[in-house]
Amino acid sequence: MTAGIDQAGATRRSAIRLADGRELLYYYRSTGESDYEASDQRTDLPVAVTTSEVRWDPIFRDYAVIASHRQARTYRPPADSCPLCPSRPGMSTEIPAADYEVVVFENRFPSFARQAEEYVEATAESVFRSVHGDGRCEVVCFTSNHDQSFSQLEPERARTVIDAWADRTTELSKIPSIDYVFCFENRGEEIGVTLSHPHGQIYGFPFVPPRFLRASESVNQYHEQTGQCLQCVILAAELEAEVRVVVQTDHWVAYVPYAARWPYEVRIVPRVHVPDLPALSPDQRDDLARIYLDVLQRFDALFDTPAPYIAGWQQAPVRLTRELWHLSAEVFTIRRAPGKLKYLAGTESGAGIWINDITPEGAADRLRAASPRRSADVGGS
Amino acid sequence: MTAGIDQAGATRRSAIRLADGRELLYYYRSTGESDYEASDQRTDLPVAVTTSEVRWDPIFRDYAVIASHRQARTYRPPADSCPLCPSRPGMSTEIPAADYEVVVFENRFPSFARQAEEYVEATAESVFRSVHGDGRCEVVCFTSNHDQSFSQLEPERARTVIDAWADRTTELSKIPSIDYVFCFENRGEEIGVTLSHPHGQIYGFPFVPPRFLRASESVNQYHEQTGQCLQCVILAAELEAEVRVVVQTDHWVAYVPYAARWPYEVRIVPRVHVPDLPALSPDQRDDLARIYLDVLQRFDALFDTPAPYIAGWQQAPVRLTRELWHLSAEVFTIRRAPGKLKYLAGTESGAGIWINDITPEGAADRLRAASPRRSADVGGS
Repeated sequence: MTAGIDQAGATRRSAIRLADGRELLYYYRSTGESDYEASDQRTDLPVAVTTSEVRWDPIFRDYAVIASHRQARTYRPPADSCPLCPSRPGMSTEIPAADYEVVVFENRFPSFARQAEEYVEATAESVFRSVHGDGRCEVVCFTSNHDQSFSQLEPERARTVIDAWADRTTELSKIPSIDYVFCFENRGEEIGVTLSHPHGQIYGFPFVPPRFLRASESVNQYHEQTGQCLQCVILAAELEAEVRVVVQTDHWVAYVPYAARWPYEVRIVPRVHVPDLPALSPDQRDDLARIYLDVLQRFDALFDTPAPYIAGWQQAPVRLTRELWHLSAEVFTIRRAPGKLKYLAGTESGAGIWINDITPEGAADRLRAASPRRSADVGGS
Repeated sequence: MTAGIDQAGATRRSAIRLADGRELLYYYRSTGESDYEASDQRTDLPVAVTTSEVRWDPIFRDYAVIASHRQARTYRPPADSCPLCPSRPGMSTEIPAADYEVVVFENRFPSFARQAEEYVEATAESVFRSVHGDGRCEVVCFTSNHDQSFSQLEPERARTVIDAWADRTTELSKIPSIDYVFCFENRGEEIGVTLSHPHGQIYGFPFVPPRFLRASESVNQYHEQTGQCLQCVILAAELEAEVRVVVQTDHWVAYVPYAARWPYEVRIVPRVHVPDLPALSPDQRDDLARIYLDVLQRFDALFDTPAPYIAGWQQAPVRLTRELWHLSAEVFTIRRAPGKLKYLAGTESGAGIWINDITPEGAADRLRAASPRRSADVGGS
């Protein structure tokens, strides 16, 4: 099965099922030879049992996802048995094809799964309430090159990733139990990444995460009070203040938020008010590929070695505040100085208050000075 | 100056000023010889400049504390120049006395300070709002023994720490700008502790941290709907369910919360409905010393080496919901298996959703089986 997914017709999609029934999708722009129809040779691959339960904390109003099967997940395999590299004779990985551009597949060790086996019915009377972990967790491989990083991709490849994120957002939004689609990347061993192959993840949450629910309330309230979009107003104020702006393009602005929680943190927002990635035009997507690579390359250049980072997209909830929500991305590192990390200890993890040693204005200065570059000597950490 | 602070008259307090003007208080039960009047010999100690600014994020409704002077703070000094050991000839530390039981003093590198120099006035019109970082950060040393840990203290010493926490809560609550008093301990290099001497911290926040503000709203709402205390109802339900209870005493119960976020997490609550540590009777305090040590010793015994942990007290806000709030403590580790840590990556730090690989019931099983002990072979990690 092959289907064009992009308005401009450039990115195409091809789907197969893995040996245990999980879905896998290739996203590609090349019109050359490919073996995307290749089937999974791991005929003995057992179906992984997922026991995901989402529990509600009635005091602190948080969800905790209990996913005990994940303790068995793959942990720092050697490079020659990387499950995210293409398959080759004698080594069947998660990806049957001999090469690929971008690939998305269902996580074998998901935090949520559509067929989660165990859950406790919520009862309004009980203080112990849980919901079925009926979501979906996907892995996104950005390139078949094990040793590359997102920051070192060609802009065309970054554009294919953006198209894949947008397509997955559209598709996962159609699943009735999914209320929020979160596309993100964890990069670097220092934040616990267990597979070094350049990849990100997409979570289809069966609820709106409270952090985004609060944002939804904020934009609603602000609109009621002023008739304006809070994100638009903040963007205009940041552009006027200038001191925290890192880089800007025709369609996008990257700035360090005024109340940044992390040592180096950048928000990337479109100038135009759009709710999510699927709503972006082809031009806005091409321009996003450029500014996103530019920002990641600045994080690579901040320190002696590329900074570990977390990058995530704040899209509109599937069924809430869609017309008021203004898309943004958040990229931040936990490294505060060479060899020194920002730890989340008592104040952060206990009281929920972030103490930041670096001023947002100072961070913006450093990021502006960190020259973006694509080169062989700036590889993964 | 010496003053009895405990109803039973057992714990006493003696105060001095350090060379740069910071306050230091000794808490002690022994009536023997002491040199608590000894003065700070560091006559050249410069006054540390604190530039603390609390910024408000109007989208996610979080405070970020920008405290840039903290980059210069003491980082893993060698044991023979530990600033938290008693002073000795030729080595003047933060504590002038030659020995002490428990000591509390103002942090030289605080996240907040009463004389913070820089801040921006909040303006209702602007999206950039900050408040003065007008709080107080204190360090609590649990023992003069550099190599001990809280879990290995004698119960009498733990009781003195509890009295010190209660006294500091009472005193800091009198400061008009302080809205919340948070007593906590970070233990272990794995969570970024930069001084290995057994110590904790007390933060007098100039606002109620949003996590505790949400808890305050929860107990208020629950009381309006049911006329009951939510924490009391949860405690009764946990006692009835039994599966998550770790240990209980006459006055206290320790259990793993139903929606635990961390691999091993314990909530310690008094059976009686009290708002904060100062409200505890002498019997309740003695009993707390016992159960608190028991729980910490179980964390020591969980793995091959003592688990790093964060422990914090959830007291009533100074001026909010005091009669409805039910005191509790939270102790948790980020270690999920020997040599493996729980990292806060995209889902936790980006979306605010914790994924827990360990079921709360399984964690309670392990903690019940981990035998508490005080012994020479269970030292700091």
